[in-house]
Amino acid sequence: MAEMEWETPHLLAEIQDGQLLPHHSIDCVVLGYDKRELKVLLVRWRGEEMWGLPGGFVRKTENFEEAASRILTARTGLRDVYLEQFHTFTNVDRNQSASSAEAAMFQRVSKRLPGGTEVARWLQQRFVSTGYFALIQLDEATPRPDFLSDACSWHPVSHLPRLILDHGQMLARARLHLRQKVNYLPVGLKLLPEKFTMGMLQSLYEAILQRPLVRSNFQRKMLSLGTLQRHEKLKTGAANKAPYLYSFMPEAYYRLVREGIGF
Amino acid sequence: MAEMEWETPHLLAEIQDGQLLPHHSIDCVVLGYDKRELKVLLVRWRGEEMWGLPGGFVRKTENFEEAASRILTARTGLRDVYLEQFHTFTNVDRNQSASSAEAAMFQRVSKRLPGGTEVARWLQQRFVSTGYFALIQLDEATPRPDFLSDACSWHPVSHLPRLILDHGQMLARARLHLRQKVNYLPVGLKLLPEKFTMGMLQSLYEAILQRPLVRSNFQRKMLSLGTLQRHEKLKTGAANKAPYLYSFMPEAYYRLVREGIGF
Repeated sequence: MAEMEWETPHLLAEIQDGQLLPHHSIDCVVLGYDKRELKVLLVRWRGEEMWGLPGGFVRKTENFEEAASRILTARTGLRDVYLEQFHTFTNVDRNQSASSAEAAMFQRVSKRLPGGTEVARWLQQRFVSTGYFALIQLDEATPRPDFLSDACSWHPVSHLPRLILDHGQMLARARLHLRQKVNYLPVGLKLLPEKFTMGMLQSLYEAILQRPLVRSNFQRKMLSLGTLQRHEKLKTGAANKAPYLYSFMPEAYYRLVREGIGF
Repeated sequence: MAEMEWETPHLLAEIQDGQLLPHHSIDCVVLGYDKRELKVLLVRWRGEEMWGLPGGFVRKTENFEEAASRILTARTGLRDVYLEQFHTFTNVDRNQSASSAEAAMFQRVSKRLPGGTEVARWLQQRFVSTGYFALIQLDEATPRPDFLSDACSWHPVSHLPRLILDHGQMLARARLHLRQKVNYLPVGLKLLPEKFTMGMLQSLYEAILQRPLVRSNFQRKMLSLGTLQRHEKLKTGAANKAPYLYSFMPEAYYRLVREGIGF
């Protein structure tokens, strides 16, 4: 059903029927954590070598959270993912005075679609785009391209392809938002296995903060939050050097999510 | 000039000339700190007993930051105030299915204006509103009502009049944003006198965080940030009990603003 919703004739019908709210779009920064690095979900414009964030438009009958959730489900197959609005991108020229190479690309891509002229005209209006951000378990998603793209895949944030419009700024802003969030909210539940070592938790924080952390300080800070339960040591063969395993205590974790780590 | 911009004939002309971007509006949460409490700037709807946040519309040729800045200048006379976008409010029914009492009020207010029918029609579309937030020196502002209002004044956030639409939620969200910010950014420069006591700084933080803080912990935390310079004691007559005066060292302060207090 999610795929049906985004088949091209449907977009065209939505444009023709006036179902979409003009001047508004949504872009999603979907981050996953895999092999000690952050990855971002990108779509490749149909028949082109340009990539962008997964995005879409808002129906006149929808709240933006509903539209963002619908877009995320269509691209990943995931439902009930926590999506957080992080910024609205408003520059007058963000999509209207795009470089001539980009404007030409939008024209080429539109022409490959049924009703291409109308799709192209829709794409040419001024769009103010609201950015939504999700941090998901990467291996649970099944990336699928949308009507304007022919690929949808994960890319390490440290090795990005060329991105359209202001999508590079959007990604940078979402990562800043995440870096600031870890100062007052816990992170890690659902991103790490149920049981993990302090080193694995530290690696996740280092990937988010983009800098190495001092091990002893990190451990003290994490333990002081009261969200971790200590278990047996990790089985490594060398028991005395083996690190302890931990898990999050959901009740304490979600209390911190609600109340913040505090001043 | 700022006042001219918001005279009623101008709004009507902007609507008639198609100068405004449809479906977009801006609301500003302007907070000031005065007599140990946070106050918010509100406008009263013309001839009514309902209040709202100062707001306005976006010209097709404007970035939203420009529009928010123009609106803030028109309401306060202040220029070059740092305005920060904090959230975009998107609910379908946030202004369209307003309570019938509110809908009737918008009609009444519009009818009192030249071109009231067109103004009323403009106000009836679905507006997605982007919220901007400013923390200012209250006594530097000169509040002025806009074309739809007959009063513009400061109100303690703890004693608010009745607010239109979702403006109560907007204010709550801006205050949450500010409470979270003080966990990773310094606050106080330009809100306190040049020299202040640790007690005055603590009162500001308590007003923002809405809870009492432990004096010794607060002092230790503040001194550890490296942004404060200690001066002579406050002259109280009882020199040995008098508190020290401090000032912010701008260079260290703004370095923290750029880099964050950090994890």
